[in-house]
Amino acid sequence: MGRESSVGDVVWRCAALAVFFFLGFIAGWFGRPASEPAATEYQDRLESLLQDIHTHNIRHYLREFTRLPHLAGTEQNLRLAERIRDEWAGFGLEGVELVSYDVLLSYPNQNRPNYISILQHGEEIFNTSLSEPVPEGYENVSDIVPPYNAFSPQGQPEGELVYVNYGRTEDFLLLEREGINCSGKIAIARYGKIFRGNKVKNAMLWGAVGIVLYSDPADYCASGVEVYPQGWNLPGGGAQRGNVLNLNGAGDPLTPGYPAKEYTYRFDPEKGVGLPKIPVHPIGYNDAVHLLKNMGGPAPPSGWTGALNVSYRIGPGFTQDTRNQTVRMNVFSTNRVTRIYNVIGRIRGAQEPDRYVILGGHRDAWVFGAIDPISGAATVHETARSAGALLKTGWRPRRTMVFASWDAEEFGLLGSTEWAEENAKILQERAVAYINADSAIEGMYTLRVDCTPSLHTLVYDITKKISSPEEGEEGVSLYDSWHKRDNWTDERDAPRISKLGSGSDFEAYFIRLGIAAGRARYTKNKKTEKYSNYPLYHSVYETFELVGVSYDPSFRRLQAVARVRAGLLFRLADSRLLPLDCQEYAAALRKYAASIRALAHTHPNITQHNVTFDPLFSAVENFTNAARDFHQRLQDLDTSNELVLRMVNDQLMYLERAFVDPLGLPGRPFYRHVIFAPSSHNKYAGESFPGVYDALFGIERSDDPHAAWSEVRRQISIATYTVQAAAMTLTPP
Amino acid sequence: MGRESSVGDVVWRCAALAVFFFLGFIAGWFGRPASEPAATEYQDRLESLLQDIHTHNIRHYLREFTRLPHLAGTEQNLRLAERIRDEWAGFGLEGVELVSYDVLLSYPNQNRPNYISILQHGEEIFNTSLSEPVPEGYENVSDIVPPYNAFSPQGQPEGELVYVNYGRTEDFLLLEREGINCSGKIAIARYGKIFRGNKVKNAMLWGAVGIVLYSDPADYCASGVEVYPQGWNLPGGGAQRGNVLNLNGAGDPLTPGYPAKEYTYRFDPEKGVGLPKIPVHPIGYNDAVHLLKNMGGPAPPSGWTGALNVSYRIGPGFTQDTRNQTVRMNVFSTNRVTRIYNVIGRIRGAQEPDRYVILGGHRDAWVFGAIDPISGAATVHETARSAGALLKTGWRPRRTMVFASWDAEEFGLLGSTEWAEENAKILQERAVAYINADSAIEGMYTLRVDCTPSLHTLVYDITKKISSPEEGEEGVSLYDSWHKRDNWTDERDAPRISKLGSGSDFEAYFIRLGIAAGRARYTKNKKTEKYSNYPLYHSVYETFELVGVSYDPSFRRLQAVARVRAGLLFRLADSRLLPLDCQEYAAALRKYAASIRALAHTHPNITQHNVTFDPLFSAVENFTNAARDFHQRLQDLDTSNELVLRMVNDQLMYLERAFVDPLGLPGRPFYRHVIFAPSSHNKYAGESFPGVYDALFGIERSDDPHAAWSEVRRQISIATYTVQAAAMTLTPP
Repeated sequence: MGRESSVGDVVWRCAALAVFFFLGFIAGWFGRPASEPAATEYQDRLESLLQDIHTHNIRHYLREFTRLPHLAGTEQNLRLAERIRDEWAGFGLEGVELVSYDVLLSYPNQNRPNYISILQHGEEIFNTSLSEPVPEGYENVSDIVPPYNAFSPQGQPEGELVYVNYGRTEDFLLLEREGINCSGKIAIARYGKIFRGNKVKNAMLWGAVGIVLYSDPADYCASGVEVYPQGWNLPGGGAQRGNVLNLNGAGDPLTPGYPAKEYTYRFDPEKGVGLPKIPVHPIGYNDAVHLLKNMGGPAPPSGWTGALNVSYRIGPGFTQDTRNQTVRMNVFSTNRVTRIYNVIGRIRGAQEPDRYVILGGHRDAWVFGAIDPISGAATVHETARSAGALLKTGWRPRRTMVFASWDAEEFGLLGSTEWAEENAKILQERAVAYINADSAIEGMYTLRVDCTPSLHTLVYDITKKISSPEEGEEGVSLYDSWHKRDNWTDERDAPRISKLGSGSDFEAYFIRLGIAAGRARYTKNKKTEKYSNYPLYHSVYETFELVGVSYDPSFRRLQAVARVRAGLLFRLADSRLLPLDCQEYAAALRKYAASIRALAHTHPNITQHNVTFDPLFSAVENFTNAARDFHQRLQDLDTSNELVLRMVNDQLMYLERAFVDPLGLPGRPFYRHVIFAPSSHNKYAGESFPGVYDALFGIERSDDPHAAWSEVRRQISIATYTVQAAAMTLTPP
Repeated sequence: MGRESSVGDVVWRCAALAVFFFLGFIAGWFGRPASEPAATEYQDRLESLLQDIHTHNIRHYLREFTRLPHLAGTEQNLRLAERIRDEWAGFGLEGVELVSYDVLLSYPNQNRPNYISILQHGEEIFNTSLSEPVPEGYENVSDIVPPYNAFSPQGQPEGELVYVNYGRTEDFLLLEREGINCSGKIAIARYGKIFRGNKVKNAMLWGAVGIVLYSDPADYCASGVEVYPQGWNLPGGGAQRGNVLNLNGAGDPLTPGYPAKEYTYRFDPEKGVGLPKIPVHPIGYNDAVHLLKNMGGPAPPSGWTGALNVSYRIGPGFTQDTRNQTVRMNVFSTNRVTRIYNVIGRIRGAQEPDRYVILGGHRDAWVFGAIDPISGAATVHETARSAGALLKTGWRPRRTMVFASWDAEEFGLLGSTEWAEENAKILQERAVAYINADSAIEGMYTLRVDCTPSLHTLVYDITKKISSPEEGEEGVSLYDSWHKRDNWTDERDAPRISKLGSGSDFEAYFIRLGIAAGRARYTKNKKTEKYSNYPLYHSVYETFELVGVSYDPSFRRLQAVARVRAGLLFRLADSRLLPLDCQEYAAALRKYAASIRALAHTHPNITQHNVTFDPLFSAVENFTNAARDFHQRLQDLDTSNELVLRMVNDQLMYLERAFVDPLGLPGRPFYRHVIFAPSSHNKYAGESFPGVYDALFGIERSDDPHAAWSEVRRQISIATYTVQAAAMTLTPP
C-alpha cells in the first residue's frame, strides 16, 4: 500500500500541480489587464480637470492679456505670442512653437487719418471724429488703432448719401423697387443683422461708390442699460472696427488655398480674393446723426427706422437748405503683407498620437479685446495649465491634444486658415475634432452652443457635470440652468443647440476640411435682447473692466464656459470610443431635408420644374438606418481589441469628412461642407444644405428660370450623393 | 515530527502548487501566440498563390471570354458580367455584385453607316469601306460594331483635306508657320504618338470642320511581320476604333464629379464634358491611300512621311485633274445614356477589413478584345480563382481584397471612374493601393511596369520570385530576364520602371484620389519596334487566335503578368507592414525636380522672370530626410503593437494622398495629382510635375509672357507646398 500510496500520491501531486498550472495559466491569460483605466478612474480624471479650472486664474489671464492692444501684425501681439508660448511650455505642453505666415493685413495711414466729411461748396463743414474717446485708466496707452474697416481701398469718393438700412440683399431690392438708384452714390448702412462684408458686397453690386457703416443705438444699445463705463452700452463716440472682406474661407487674400509661406506665390494685390473695390468706413452714432439728420427723399419703409432722433429718410442726398451739400469719404488705409504668429502647443497622445483634438482660439484683438477674444484666450490658457498639471501627475491622454492661439482672426480668420492650409493633409487624416474658443461671453443670460450634430450628446453629457454659474443656482447643473432658459421646444425637450455659421476660426476646420467642430459661450436672452452682437463689440471699450465689472464679476460664467470647452477637449481626446453620435446627425439631416423642401415649396412654380426631394429623403433614410445599425453594433463591440476600436473610431472620425465635397460650393471653392456653410448672403448665418439654399435664393433674381431651377436640381442631386456617401462610411467595411 | 513533517509537507506542497501556478501563469502570459504567422509561412502562402496561377486556366478564360463581342452597354456584355459575377461567387469571393451606372455612350447608327467620300460635281466617286473584313472563324458572329470614333458628333462636313501628320500641337504649329490654314478644312491625321482625343482637340483649335484618322503602315505594321491572320500586323482593311473625348478624368461626360445614378443631375448633352464638336471617323490604310494619293500643296516636312506609296503632300486639297474633287465626311453616330455594369467582388480582411487593395481591369471590348482587355481580364479571373482557393484552406488576408471588372473603359474609363466617384470617401480613407489589369500583353519581348515610386521595391521583390516565361530561360527569374532586356541604365542598374500616364482605369484612383497604383504587362522591344500600340489595337482582329497563336502560344507570358499582378495584390493585402517604400518616392521626386528645372532652363529668357526652383529643391530635401528618418524608425518598430503598426501603415497609405491637391490642375479639376498626371497635350504620356510642365508649355504660345511666367512661378509654389505637405505626413505625429 505504501508503494501504491506513494504512486497515488505522486499522481495526485502531479494532478494538483497540473491543475494549479492550468489555473495559473488561465489567470495569466485572461488576467492581463486592459491598458485602459476603469470608467470611474476616467470619470475622476475628467472631474479633476474640470475642478482645476479656476475663476481666479481666468481673471488673472484676462487682466494680464488686456493691458495693451494686441492688433495682428504688431510688435505687441508678437510679444503676447511669445509670452503665451513660454507659459504653455511652463505648464508642461510639448513642442510649443510660434508658427508664422506673411499675410495681407490692412492698417490706417498714420499720417492721413480716415474720416467722412460733409462738403459745402467744396469746403468741409463737418468731419467725423478721428478716434474714440479713450476709456478711463487707458489714457497713456499708445497704439490704439482708430476705428476703420480693414481692407477698404483708398479713395475719396464724393456724392449723395443713400440710406440702405442694414445693407442686406432685401434692403437693396426694396430700394430698387422704390426706384432709388444707388449707382454713383455713397451708401450709409447700419451695422447689424448680417456680416459687414456682405453689406459692402451688396453696395458694390448696386453701384455705390463708397459705403459708410454706423452703429445705430437701436442695434448697439440695450434698453435700460447705461453706456460705458457706467454700463455696457455703446457710447455715441464709440465705433465698430472690422474687416470687410468676402473671403469665403480663402484665408490670406493673396494665397488662396495655400499657406502664406516664404516660398508661396502671391497674387498681385488687385487680384486678391474678396477685397472690396469701394471705400468703406465705420462711424459711431454721434457722428451718424450729422450725416442722417438732413437727408431727403422718401420716408423710410417699415423696419428701417433706428433709434436716433432723425427721420431716416432714404435720400439720395440732403434736403432743403442742405440740398447742395455732399458727402466725401476720405480713406487712406493701406494693405501690407505682414508677418503673423500662431502659437501651437501639444500634449502627445499615449495610445493614438496620430489622432488630434484641437482647442483653438484667436489672440489678436482690435484694441484691448477683453471680450473678443481674450475672454476666450483666457479659457484656453487656463485649460492648457490644467491639462499640463494633470500631465505632471503621470496622466497622458489617449489622443494628442493641440492647443492653438491664432493670429489675425480679425483680418479674415487668417492665422487659423493658413495653419489649416499648411497642415491640411495631416488634419484630414488625423483630426478628430476642433473646439473653437473665441469670445467666451456676449451676454449674461445662459449658455450658447453651436456645433455639429454628432457633438450634441457630448455637449449635453458634459454640461450635466458642470455647475451653473448663476447666483441662486447652487447645486443646479449648467445643463439644467441652460435648459430652463433656452429650451429647444419645437424640436425636443433639451437645451437648444444651433448650427455652426461662420465668422470665427473653426471655419477652415469645419467647412473646408470637414472636421467635427463646436463652440460654446455665454450669451444674452435672444427673446428679449434684440441688439446685435454685444454693444461694445470691436470698440475701444472692450476692457478688462467691461468683463470684470459688468459681464462676469465673479468670473463664474467664464469658468463655466472654460469647463465646457475643456470637457469637450478632454472627452474627445481621452475616451476609448469617440463620443461622437451619428444618430444625432441622422436626426439633424432629416430635419434639414424637411426644412429645405419646405423652403423650395414656397416657390409657386416649383411643380413645373421637375424638382423632387424624394431621392434626398431616401438618402437620409439610408443614412438613418446606417447610423442606427452602427450604433447597434457599438453595443456588442469587443472594445478590448484595439484594431476593432480604431476601425469604428475611424468611421466616427471620418463621418464629418464625408460631408465635404472637394469641388466646393458654386463659386466658393473653399466652402466645401455640403450640409453646413454660410449662405452667400450672410457669412454669420449657418445654412443647412447651403448649395440648395443658395440655388433657391437665386431663382427670383435669375433672368433664366430654366437654368436657375436646373441649378436647384443639381444641388439637390449633390446633396443626395453626399448623404448617400456619408451613409456608406457608417456601414461595416 | 509527524505533525511537523505534515506541516512541512503542506508548506512544501503549497509552495510547489504556487510555483507551478506561477509557471503556468508565465506560460499563459507570454505563450499567447501572436495572431500573425511566421515569415516562412507567409512566404509559403505567397508562393502557393503564385504557383496556383495556371496557363491552362488563363487560356481557358481567354477562349471563353472572346467568343463574342462585348461592347459596353450591350446585352452581351451584361451577360458576360453576370457570368463573371457567378464564377467569382463560385470561387469563394464575398459580396459579389453588379454595380450599374447610366452613362453617356456612343454608337453608330445602324441604319446610316459612317463613311468618308470623295466628291466630284457633288457625286460620290469613292467611299471608304463600311466595315472590316471579318476574320476567319468569326463569320457568323453578329453585332460586330464597325470602326468608328465614339462620341463624334453627327455631321457631313465637306471641304479640302489637310494632312496634319500625327495631329500633335507641334504638327499644327508647323503648318501655321508654313502658312497653311486648317480653318474650314477637313484634317487627315495618322494614328499614333498621342491620344487620338488630343488630335481632335487640336484640329478643333486650328479650325478644322472634321478630322479623319487613319492607321499608316509606318505606325501599325512591324517590319518583317505578316498581316493577320498569317501574322500580327494590321491588314489594309483593318481600322482602329476608339473614343475621342477630352474628359481629363471627369468620367461620364454628363455627371462630372458624381456617380451616374438614378438621382444624379445630368448636364444637357451639349454641355457634356470633353465631347468633340467636329465629326471624326477612322479608316484603314487601304482607304487612306485613296484620300492621300492625289493631295496637292507642299511636299511633306521631314518626319511627316508614312509608309504608303503616296507623296504625303500637305494640301489643302487635291492636285491637277482631281483639283475639283472634295471630301465629305458622313457621320451619323448617336450619343445615348446607357446602363453599364461593373462586377465587384471582395475577400474581407481578417485583421483590417477597413483597408482595401483593389485589383481592377475592364471587361468591355470594341469587338472580341482578346488583347484589350481580355488578356487582362483573364489574369484577374485566374487571380480571383486562386485567391478563392486559398481562402477555402482557411487563410484570410489581413486587409480586404477588392476585385473589379470594369465596364465602358473604352468610352472614357467610365465604369471605373463612376465607381470611384460613388465610393470616393471610403476609398480616400481606406484604399491602400490600386493594381490595374488592362491588356496583359502588347509585345513579345519583356515585362513593362508603370507604377508609383513607392511600389518600385515591391515590384522588384515580386519579380524575383517569378520565373521568366521565355523559352531557354528555365531557372531564370522574371526580374533577371527583364533586367537583361530593359536595364534602367541612365538611372540605376535595375529593370526600368516608368511613370503612370493615363488611358486606363487606374486614372480616377491614382490621379484623382491619390491611391498608390501600378500596372504591369508584357511589351515589345521599344528600341527596335517603333510601331504605335500594337498593330491590331482596337481592330476586329484582336481574336483569341492572335494571342494563342502569335503573342503567347504557351500562355506563359500571360501567366507571368498574372503573377506580377497577383503578387502585388497579395503582398499589399497581407503584409503586416505595408510594402510601400517612401525612400523610392524621395529619389523619384529629386529626379523629377531636376528634370523640370532643366526643362525650364531651356527657355532663354527665364532669368528675367524671377523663377527659382530653390524652394522646390529644399522641399524635396525635407521630404528625403523625412523619408529616411521614417525608414529608420521602421527598423526599431515594435510591430507587435497593433496600434503602432496601424499608425505607420496609415502614414505609408496616406503618403500618396498627400500629393493630391483638391483644387486640381488648372482647368482640369479631376486631375489632382501634383506629381503625376498626363500633360494637357497627350493623355497617354505621364508627366512629372504636370502643373509646372503645362505652365512651361504655355509660355511660347502666350500673348502675355508676364502672366505666363507668373503661372510657372505659381505652379512651382504649389509643387513646393505639396512636397512639403507630403514630408509632414512622414514625420512622427
